[in-house]
Amino acid sequence: MASPALRADLGRIVGDEHVLDPVPRELLQDATESRGLTGRALAAVRPADAEEVAAVVRWAARTGTALVPRGGGTGFSGGAVPGAAPDDPDAVVLATDRLTRGATIRPEDWSATFPAGTVTADLQRRCLEAGLFFAPNPGSAESSLLGGNVATNAGGPRSFKHGPVRAWVSGVEAVLGDGERVRLGGAVRKNVETLDLLGLLCGSEGTLGVLTEVTLKLQPAPEVALPTIALYADREAGLAAIAAVLACGVVPTALEFLDGTTLAASAGAFPGGLPEGAGFAVLVEALGPAAVAPLEARELATALAPDALAVRAPTERAAVDALWRWRDGVSIAVTAARGGKLSEDLVVPASRLGDALAAVEEVGARHGVPVTSWGHAGDGNLHATVLVDRDDAAELARAEQAAHAMLEIAHRLGGALTGEHGIGLVKREAAAALDPTLRRAQRAVKDVLDPAGIMNPGRKL
Amino acid sequence: MASPALRADLGRIVGDEHVLDPVPRELLQDATESRGLTGRALAAVRPADAEEVAAVVRWAARTGTALVPRGGGTGFSGGAVPGAAPDDPDAVVLATDRLTRGATIRPEDWSATFPAGTVTADLQRRCLEAGLFFAPNPGSAESSLLGGNVATNAGGPRSFKHGPVRAWVSGVEAVLGDGERVRLGGAVRKNVETLDLLGLLCGSEGTLGVLTEVTLKLQPAPEVALPTIALYADREAGLAAIAAVLACGVVPTALEFLDGTTLAASAGAFPGGLPEGAGFAVLVEALGPAAVAPLEARELATALAPDALAVRAPTERAAVDALWRWRDGVSIAVTAARGGKLSEDLVVPASRLGDALAAVEEVGARHGVPVTSWGHAGDGNLHATVLVDRDDAAELARAEQAAHAMLEIAHRLGGALTGEHGIGLVKREAAAALDPTLRRAQRAVKDVLDPAGIMNPGRKL
Repeated sequence: MASPALRADLGRIVGDEHVLDPVPRELLQDATESRGLTGRALAAVRPADAEEVAAVVRWAARTGTALVPRGGGTGFSGGAVPGAAPDDPDAVVLATDRLTRGATIRPEDWSATFPAGTVTADLQRRCLEAGLFFAPNPGSAESSLLGGNVATNAGGPRSFKHGPVRAWVSGVEAVLGDGERVRLGGAVRKNVETLDLLGLLCGSEGTLGVLTEVTLKLQPAPEVALPTIALYADREAGLAAIAAVLACGVVPTALEFLDGTTLAASAGAFPGGLPEGAGFAVLVEALGPAAVAPLEARELATALAPDALAVRAPTERAAVDALWRWRDGVSIAVTAARGGKLSEDLVVPASRLGDALAAVEEVGARHGVPVTSWGHAGDGNLHATVLVDRDDAAELARAEQAAHAMLEIAHRLGGALTGEHGIGLVKREAAAALDPTLRRAQRAVKDVLDPAGIMNPGRKL
Repeated sequence: MASPALRADLGRIVGDEHVLDPVPRELLQDATESRGLTGRALAAVRPADAEEVAAVVRWAARTGTALVPRGGGTGFSGGAVPGAAPDDPDAVVLATDRLTRGATIRPEDWSATFPAGTVTADLQRRCLEAGLFFAPNPGSAESSLLGGNVATNAGGPRSFKHGPVRAWVSGVEAVLGDGERVRLGGAVRKNVETLDLLGLLCGSEGTLGVLTEVTLKLQPAPEVALPTIALYADREAGLAAIAAVLACGVVPTALEFLDGTTLAASAGAFPGGLPEGAGFAVLVEALGPAAVAPLEARELATALAPDALAVRAPTERAAVDALWRWRDGVSIAVTAARGGKLSEDLVVPASRLGDALAAVEEVGARHGVPVTSWGHAGDGNLHATVLVDRDDAAELARAEQAAHAMLEIAHRLGGALTGEHGIGLVKREAAAALDPTLRRAQRAVKDVLDPAGIMNPGRKL
């Protein structure tokens, strides 16, 4: 609960009707709600534009109030869940969902500028209508916001060929932690005019400032999208297929995998039904002009074919969409299997994916919890997941231990703790083991851009 | 000249034979030598490994001595030319050319780690031998060093599809300005474990620290490289072809242009001779597996064909190599036209390339100096160039004025001062006009990573 003075301060900036107190429950959680995480906050504030964002940040810096910037609340790491840790300060949620005015789409420049509160799927549709394509397709596209995608440097299936969201951002407008508005980059595809402060904000999880506007560099809308999914009896066969795809010369937009447990959890929605004995799946996509993509799809299918139980390569739009709908629903299907899940997003060098999958299973067995993995094979990025009954406190505790043990796998195999979800709250213990020099340097950078220490304290760093 | 004490200090760290005093002339210049820039330094020091680099940096921080890190000295902005400005402090050149030990190539991970002193062409060859491909091909590949490529975030023709060098770097080892060694990232393709300090070092032009080792993410070696060059009567026809290529759906690895003056300057080496009346050229490349690249080349040629005087699409290796050799030699040919040149690398939004070219010509006419442009059309990145007689001081002064006027074009058209060469020394006046909040933020970041202010002072920021 906010004090009357705090409510009045914020109301003067954004209007009383845009100060929410008490804070609606949906602004106090993200996808970690399925592992039992919920937060608390003094109030939530919904500024209408960059000027109001700056005023809120200046107010917070002056009063020493913690701010938690928030997009669609679809994160997997508790980065935008305020007050969820015992040592979290009382915070105000800065919701960016009203930052929706003033999009500019410039087909002649293969560029578009959207306010940070734009829903991902909305900007994807608007780009396509203008003949433009924003390739990254992070999960939860219908509810995640652009600002959150950039602030977490989100990934997704198509990041294999096209890179994470960062690779598509040529400019941002932001409010830094001292309340100053700054414009970084612009509608150009190459730019070494300054230190890469733009890249520094991408993936900073709200710890340096608040993004208010994003300029994207875009490509021509593809004429066809041709996914191919191959099913294998076991992991070994699947891993061999992944290696063959990586070596075939055609770079697919996506190179995904799903293990047997994930396949089983999502089998009901698998188009045409899963073939008998399927214990591993590899999904690729060729995307682009009609004169080229089918040939790429053929090369990819050739790489996938040896040892496959079945190879399905839909070409009709409805069948293609059905396959992706199934893939997009995997995370939810896995959650539904036992009511909850703890899902990590370890990343390992390409050749260590098999070792990582084996290590995840070993961790599950050791802690007595069911585990499964799926994810972005081409990036060595696995969603190592513990399935939990959220109402069983003892199991939830074991699951948390297992999830932490999984994080250790990443560094043991020469990888990283997180490829796309971020550190947030749930990985910060593991992140505390990173190189002290590196941690000191990033703390020093944080301190100069957020001198009052108000921006999402206790997250990321 | 260094004092005996300074020579002795450095000699104790790297061995007396690796302290150069007087400093050889080739360590006091870069490609800006063709616009009359040369420097001076107390001494040059050539550390053998990261440990010695760290010791040199600690010595410099302790004694308050400016350090100028240096790769192959092929830059176009005076970033590694010590003491060339009147207000430059006395400096020691930190040459990285002995950092050549300990490369690791990991084909199974599509990754390789090279020391920062590796020659670009050498690492390209070694990757290819292992079936791996490092796509960025900055100019001067036979003399530029990997560390310099990363420190400037170099571009080049293939950056259109494949991004600048930054896009290929997954990890670095560096010595920060306080002498601390730090490892950022690793052999993984996605990583949001920390703030993007890795990106911050890329393109920082030696102002934050010294890179000692770089880990690259690589792709399968392409089976074929198929360039196509189309020649047009004039700029308008060429610009229409560029727009058609951008819209055709196939993303070429390179999308280059050359104007009439550049074509004329390099006509002697043009394979098969330039067709009569050629006043503008557009060069594209399809690169990849033999099953796909020829189709991409056909699509690209179709986009280029309308209004072309001639379209040449060599397929034999020798002819392909000859065309690229000609392209690689363009910068030298343009320099040779009058003995010297001042070459910028403005970047503008795609639709403003024609406006930029016209503005460059207007600037040349206004200052009474011959100008020409060529560059990376797909990136809106033009090498706007003044041709000069280096021995004519009055002309050189007019040329400097014209070059500065060209930089103003970039911001007027919504672009940036530099797409790949960096700010260095020659663009720092223009960079002083950047947004004050941005400049304050980057200065603050510089100050915490280089607290003694010894790293390449007076450059970039």
